[in-house]
Amino acid sequence: MDPWRTAIADSRDGQIRIRGYDVPSLMTGRTFTDTIFLLHQGRLPNPTERALLDAILTGVADHGSGAPSCATARLALSGNRQSVSSAVAAGILAVGDDHGGAGSGCMEMIAAGVARASAESLSLDQAALAIATEARANGKRLAGFGHRVHKTDPRTAILFDLARSGGVAGNGVAFIEAMERAIATVVKPLPINIDGALAAVLHDLGFTPVFGRLVFIIGRVAGLTAEVSEELSREKPMRIRIPVEYDGVPARPLD
Amino acid sequence: MDPWRTAIADSRDGQIRIRGYDVPSLMTGRTFTDTIFLLHQGRLPNPTERALLDAILTGVADHGSGAPSCATARLALSGNRQSVSSAVAAGILAVGDDHGGAGSGCMEMIAAGVARASAESLSLDQAALAIATEARANGKRLAGFGHRVHKTDPRTAILFDLARSGGVAGNGVAFIEAMERAIATVVKPLPINIDGALAAVLHDLGFTPVFGRLVFIIGRVAGLTAEVSEELSREKPMRIRIPVEYDGVPARPLD
Amino acid sequence: MDPWRTAIADSRDGQIRIRGYDVPSLMTGRTFTDTIFLLHQGRLPNPTERALLDAILTGVADHGSGAPSCATARLALSGNRQSVSSAVAAGILAVGDDHGGAGSGCMEMIAAGVARASAESLSLDQAALAIATEARANGKRLAGFGHRVHKTDPRTAILFDLARSGGVAGNGVAFIEAMERAIATVVKPLPINIDGALAAVLHDLGFTPVFGRLVFIIGRVAGLTAEVSEELSREKPMRIRIPVEYDGVPARPLD
Amino acid sequence: MDPWRTAIADSRDGQIRIRGYDVPSLMTGRTFTDTIFLLHQGRLPNPTERALLDAILTGVADHGSGAPSCATARLALSGNRQSVSSAVAAGILAVGDDHGGAGSGCMEMIAAGVARASAESLSLDQAALAIATEARANGKRLAGFGHRVHKTDPRTAILFDLARSGGVAGNGVAFIEAMERAIATVVKPLPINIDGALAAVLHDLGFTPVFGRLVFIIGRVAGLTAEVSEELSREKPMRIRIPVEYDGVPARPLD
Repeated sequence: MDPWRTAIADSRDGQIRIRGYDVPSLMTGRTFTDTIFLLHQGRLPNPTERALLDAILTGVADHGSGAPSCATARLALSGNRQSVSSAVAAGILAVGDDHGGAGSGCMEMIAAGVARASAESLSLDQAALAIATEARANGKRLAGFGHRVHKTDPRTAILFDLARSGGVAGNGVAFIEAMERAIATVVKPLPINIDGALAAVLHDLGFTPVFGRLVFIIGRVAGLTAEVSEELSREKPMRIRIPVEYDGVPARPLD
Repeated sequence: MDPWRTAIADSRDGQIRIRGYDVPSLMTGRTFTDTIFLLHQGRLPNPTERALLDAILTGVADHGSGAPSCATARLALSGNRQSVSSAVAAGILAVGDDHGGAGSGCMEMIAAGVARASAESLSLDQAALAIATEARANGKRLAGFGHRVHKTDPRTAILFDLARSGGVAGNGVAFIEAMERAIATVVKPLPINIDGALAAVLHDLGFTPVFGRLVFIIGRVAGLTAEVSEELSREKPMRIRIPVEYDGVPARPLD
Repeated sequence: MDPWRTAIADSRDGQIRIRGYDVPSLMTGRTFTDTIFLLHQGRLPNPTERALLDAILTGVADHGSGAPSCATARLALSGNRQSVSSAVAAGILAVGDDHGGAGSGCMEMIAAGVARASAESLSLDQAALAIATEARANGKRLAGFGHRVHKTDPRTAILFDLARSGGVAGNGVAFIEAMERAIATVVKPLPINIDGALAAVLHDLGFTPVFGRLVFIIGRVAGLTAEVSEELSREKPMRIRIPVEYDGVPARPLD
Repeated sequence: MDPWRTAIADSRDGQIRIRGYDVPSLMTGRTFTDTIFLLHQGRLPNPTERALLDAILTGVADHGSGAPSCATARLALSGNRQSVSSAVAAGILAVGDDHGGAGSGCMEMIAAGVARASAESLSLDQAALAIATEARANGKRLAGFGHRVHKTDPRTAILFDLARSGGVAGNGVAFIEAMERAIATVVKPLPINIDGALAAVLHDLGFTPVFGRLVFIIGRVAGLTAEVSEELSREKPMRIRIPVEYDGVPARPLD
């Protein structure tokens, strides 16, 4: 039987190492965000890379108890107060395409768009216009654009300014800005939102699309643990706040 | 390295067997409830045992979408409609001491009470009176008694009648009825509820206390899958019905 | 705020009802499998429908501790023996397209094939041949066919015999048999396996494709609970049987 | 119906705030670890507090793919490669008293010991000796001491040095060192391990015991996401490496 191979962490000789670095050494003078970057990239980040990952993780950590992830975690705890790990896990299970998952899809779109520009010898603007036009023709919604409240999402500017001033803004940022212009032309002006912004930046930092979803989970777990902790200390068990109205068949005899 | 040993199921030679029985044979003329009994007891049930397990599983399958398990499953799906297995799992994570878990604790109380009667040469009534008196003195709530609505839970009578007419009612049923009398004497009259009734019956059928929680999960998964299926076909994504009111510190500048 | 509407279960007046039927009544003379059918279809099954659902649930309940679902549940318990619900939930999370999920995809293929035959005025054999030919051209694997060990899966014959003798075999069974012939013609002979068989039968019983995955979960939870129970009573905590071999960078200093 | 109240996060007016601070502001110049501290404490950490939390989170992030949490996540993905959030959630479900949960129990012991010293006017050494003596008499294992490999756990010294040099070492660190001396006296010399060290430090930073488990989850999710990502990119589906040996009843006919 083959063993499971791994290049991530190692503690066979009692020394714990992550990607070859001694964990006790990483614990001094390095941040948790450095460790996250190291775990996923196999190398430590430079200051700009660290600042961007910090900003992204904070940007998605918690938007309020009513989000599906937070509400799911609280409801699970309401029936099962003995297990905070169950509640946090339940919260993660609410993360999907409709909640927290747009970054991953947007990273795929960016990777495909940049590859297409290269393969078809198009400028990024030409590739973006083609993709926006096709999406409109197929009635397909493009992830990463639009915001319920803001005309421009303030978090987008923060990430792009950090990326530019640190010299790491590349094809990802350039392409999503091209998409923003293309969408304004063929549909209507829609700002790049946090999902689109983090997707562009993570692409330029060399992450694969699946990290677009994983980074949301890492950040959101910080919020979920706080939500669960508040629920446990402040509320009673069996707290069910969802009104349910039965509208099925009325009572009827069995036979 | 030691292998995992198991006495449950076997498919090494391509033939699938559960507890030594060919699965294709079990599929004809046997019910799913027989298989559940077989998986947990290592033998097939007689008609009374099967009828009792059927009644218990139906009795806990679904009490409405507002229960923590069902509401958790629906909320998880609301953010993550791509994965019905995630939603069902999230629903199970809401099962705990406060929701669906009383049967297990009640089975432990029954096992301890019956053992105490035997060890101390007490009648079941004497042991029950001692336990009820101690619980009252310690302010400890006894699982398996009391109902929000009914003076007597109709499901209790169904299970006990089935157990008695089938000749499987034993010390479990006798002891919980002794507890009901003892509680009426030292506290106030509280009917045996479904958790208490299924605990007594499962004790008499030879199940261990942990099955008191597992049987709730098996039955409730039938309901959770239906809740999730209805949510998927009838509702929109990101349906958040929990009102949340922020009451923390007001907005403040960072530095 | 809108309430959650539901047509499944109702306990507003203290009486618990499933699809309008009193739960205490369902507990007598009806089986758990009846309740599962009722929850998902809104009506009780006839004897053939019940027998088919029983056979399917038993057919998927447990194939051995090494399946991803069972092994995941056992490993989760190994670190967290305090929560059997966590372990069962973890086991369900291993159910996906590669494990237990083929029935759902196969039901979609059957529904599409039957609809195509009708829309394009083809016989089921003609539609099946077209689909098999296209799948071969696109290198697409068709779910529901082939078996590692058997030339014919004995569970398939059991389900189809039950469906035929009970008069419920319809377009679903007919189409998947047409697919078997078509695949034999354009690829090579591949028997209808349990996933294909249950998909055909569930189609003919009027279930939607998502039930193809949910029925696997319902059946497998019977096995998962037994696996978890055995793990708890028979094994020690922190039982890790997966050999892992680190093959990443060797130890290196941090700076 | 009462709303869910919360003091954590707020996005009612479209501005997202955590504990009153604007999220865009937190994204600049603050780290993710600051946000974690803020979410759980309601205030931002000073540099020593941040360094300690960083060190703890890195210290528990990943010790290798064979830990129950990591192995559970990989196995879940092996059957269900469509859902990385399911795999990460499954990994969290393996966190319990036997894996990752010692910090929480150790924080409870510290809080009880410090309270007892105060209530009974004992020195911390006297309280520790009493507790160690009682634990030995009851055969109770004390969480937070002992290591399979090291005579002293290097991570412990790192945390205590950071806490002391930053002036935040208080009764928590003092009490666990008193416990180490007491255990050496009444049992045998056992070093304070990472669980004991983080428990002492978190106590002195004002966290409640439940955070001892939650901080492990936050840190470990960094590792779990990397393990899941590696599994997805490097391995095939249905990769089952757990050897299982059936040792139940041999094949037998059903009737």
